Amino acid sequence: MELLKQRIRQDGTVKGNDVLKVDSFLNHQIDVALLGEIGKEFRRRFADCGVNKILTIEASGIGIACITAQSFHCPVLFAKKSQTKNIAGEVYTTKVESFTHGKVYDVIVSRKFLGPDDTVLIIDDFLANGAALEGLIDLVNQAGARLAGAGIVIEKAFQPGGGRLRAKGVRVESLARVKSMSEETGVAFVD
Amino acid sequence: MELLKQRIRQDGTVKGNDVLKVDSFLNHQIDVALLGEIGKEFRRRFADCGVNKILTIEASGIGIACITAQSFHCPVLFAKKSQTKNIAGEVYTTKVESFTHGKVYDVIVSRKFLGPDDTVLIIDDFLANGAALEGLIDLVNQAGARLAGAGIVIEKAFQPGGGRLRAKGVRVESLARVKSMSEETGVAFVD
Repeated sequence: MELLKQRIRQDGTVKGNDVLKVDSFLNHQIDVALLGEIGKEFRRRFADCGVNKILTIEASGIGIACITAQSFHCPVLFAKKSQTKNIAGEVYTTKVESFTHGKVYDVIVSRKFLGPDDTVLIIDDFLANGAALEGLIDLVNQAGARLAGAGIVIEKAFQPGGGRLRAKGVRVESLARVKSMSEETGVAFVD
Repeated sequence: MELLKQRIRQDGTVKGNDVLKVDSFLNHQIDVALLGEIGKEFRRRFADCGVNKILTIEASGIGIACITAQSFHCPVLFAKKSQTKNIAGEVYTTKVESFTHGKVYDVIVSRKFLGPDDTVLIIDDFLANGAALEGLIDLVNQAGARLAGAGIVIEKAFQPGGGRLRAKGVRVESLARVKSMSEETGVAFVD
């Protein structure tokens, strides 16, 4: 998605060789007009998949998921990073390791809102190691729902998550795939 | 806002005398069409205030803020509950006590995205004790920004936050004000 790549080149900041800061438009301050275009692009790519629910994880996926859901005319469900105990079978639970924060979270969704009748599109801002995405896929599988695929805004294609998930047969559509980056030369995209 | 009150009556669930669960449409699963109407209503109420930034707090405020921002044609900034240290003056920080989780969070926004040129509308899903809202107002004040007011989806009017903030001169617009609630009789609204 050229508009997004331009924006990353213009406003993204590289720290070291693997941190890409896009907090001026994507995951702290949010440009909702850009999200509108992102949502339309996800809709174009997953148009005929019967998606009836968008699944994401708090916090930075929520805005992207909500505006994408407008294009699909379906609800959003956001998985929560839980600090509380599983309430007697009311939730599906999975574990997600955060490399950024160096911890493992329990991630939950209520059983009421995900089940065998759902066809789910997972949305997230970043894909790198793939831990969050694998956790969300686990929740979809536990619910017996169908997975249409994953729509990712920025994939760090030099990290293993995207390759591993595609090899498992998951349809992963990333709108900007970063091949490499450095503080000196900025961001280079795949293609 | 009648549409919202109807939805709360229909799909909200009261637990005890002070928990109102709206997780089927507002803060776990999200009805984005309803958020579109909520966003338009906030726009109607704060139409001529010169709002150029919507401020909210993760996580459940983000979807509401993003869709509201579409009606204002302005960006969203979401404050983060931080578990990391203040990075050498790069952020404004405040403390917010969560009554639900029984802890005190550091809440931060980057100084880059909030300053004296901003006129801010704060958006959140719930107002009860007012702790989160007071924290966000503190961030706006630290930045030297102007506060247009606060747009709240559901105010628990039987708790002290809304009254205390209005008494301080903050314009608080709540789309549904709950006067009282119980498991037996459901939700009663102010007016």
